[in-house]
Amino acid sequence: MSDAEEKVTSKDTEEVIMEATFRAISKHGYADLRMRDIGEEMEMTRQVIHYHFDGKYDLLSSFLEHIIGQYEGSVDVDDDADPRSELAARIDQCLFGPEFDEFGHWDRMKVFHELYSHAQNDEQHRAIFNSHYEGMRDSIVTVVEAGMEEGTFRTVDAERMGQLITDVIHAARARKISLGHGDAPEEARSAIDEFILDSLYVDDERQLHRT
Amino acid sequence: MSDAEEKVTSKDTEEVIMEATFRAISKHGYADLRMRDIGEEMEMTRQVIHYHFDGKYDLLSSFLEHIIGQYEGSVDVDDDADPRSELAARIDQCLFGPEFDEFGHWDRMKVFHELYSHAQNDEQHRAIFNSHYEGMRDSIVTVVEAGMEEGTFRTVDAERMGQLITDVIHAARARKISLGHGDAPEEARSAIDEFILDSLYVDDERQLHRT
Repeated sequence: MSDAEEKVTSKDTEEVIMEATFRAISKHGYADLRMRDIGEEMEMTRQVIHYHFDGKYDLLSSFLEHIIGQYEGSVDVDDDADPRSELAARIDQCLFGPEFDEFGHWDRMKVFHELYSHAQNDEQHRAIFNSHYEGMRDSIVTVVEAGMEEGTFRTVDAERMGQLITDVIHAARARKISLGHGDAPEEARSAIDEFILDSLYVDDERQLHRT
Repeated sequence: MSDAEEKVTSKDTEEVIMEATFRAISKHGYADLRMRDIGEEMEMTRQVIHYHFDGKYDLLSSFLEHIIGQYEGSVDVDDDADPRSELAARIDQCLFGPEFDEFGHWDRMKVFHELYSHAQNDEQHRAIFNSHYEGMRDSIVTVVEAGMEEGTFRTVDAERMGQLITDVIHAARARKISLGHGDAPEEARSAIDEFILDSLYVDDERQLHRT
């Protein structure tokens, strides 16, 4: 082992491998990724990857859990926010991302969406994505239900509303990444406000001007 | 050349290769696809692929244009349909697909969405997808504008409405494929009706019960 390796703990090493994987996928994409590409992004010898992970698939599954894990619990909402503000904050955070020290939201989303599409052929990744999707949708459903209970939101199928908003967020992120539409998240935000939340808010002024 | 090859024209051969590519991608996914896999799905010798296409990338670009081309112009709407019926027909067709003799809508969508996510690393594929996305969105924008002109739709930002509906359709298809949510298209259809089109129709009864 080199000196560099001896200085780091096992936990640190996995973190280094995750970061190298990030860089490698950003450069080469998921489809063409080789273990060697990940090795080239590390200062340590490539052997440590094989020591920590049982092959490329095992490494990529851990990597997916790693990037999703950093999102969960990261939504920053005041405990005493009213449902309308909380809903807005959650939508913003999902669309525009929380702050990260290293590798921004869109770097993460690029990898996320590439693996997401590949999950059609992969039961294990599909389960990880499903759990993440449900967490995101349920957090929106919960705040919609709170608003209905409080009387500030119209009575709707909260489950369906949560799913619709989650779908729009996913589509806008995918469109920015796959089609290069840089404004897609901002456009989706405006469309959610104008066409979806408009039908949710009881006291929305625009409703008075309808028909 | 074998007898089988001599019997078919160049056009037929490309069609045979496209169908073999479909089967190969359905089996192996895009990421792991090798020319050999496509060859194994054909009765002809694999050499004809190299004769017709300049490598895997050229073949896959042609394949993408092939499957998208079959969608464009395939939307079946009555010329004299009112905007509301036409909008419903277009949304249904995009979500549930037109009829195909071979390889159903969802077989096509699986390939479409896998290549869609990969387009982040591929300018040529991105351009093909962008042109398809714009065609889909614009056809919805056009019918929204027609309804506004006719007075059956409320005055809205038609571009934004077209984009939102197109995004929801894309997200629902991706969710069915990647997450295995079989009902995603039906759920999206209900959500579009209940939460998006509801704010578009001038004479919608539900609006009278608002607030």
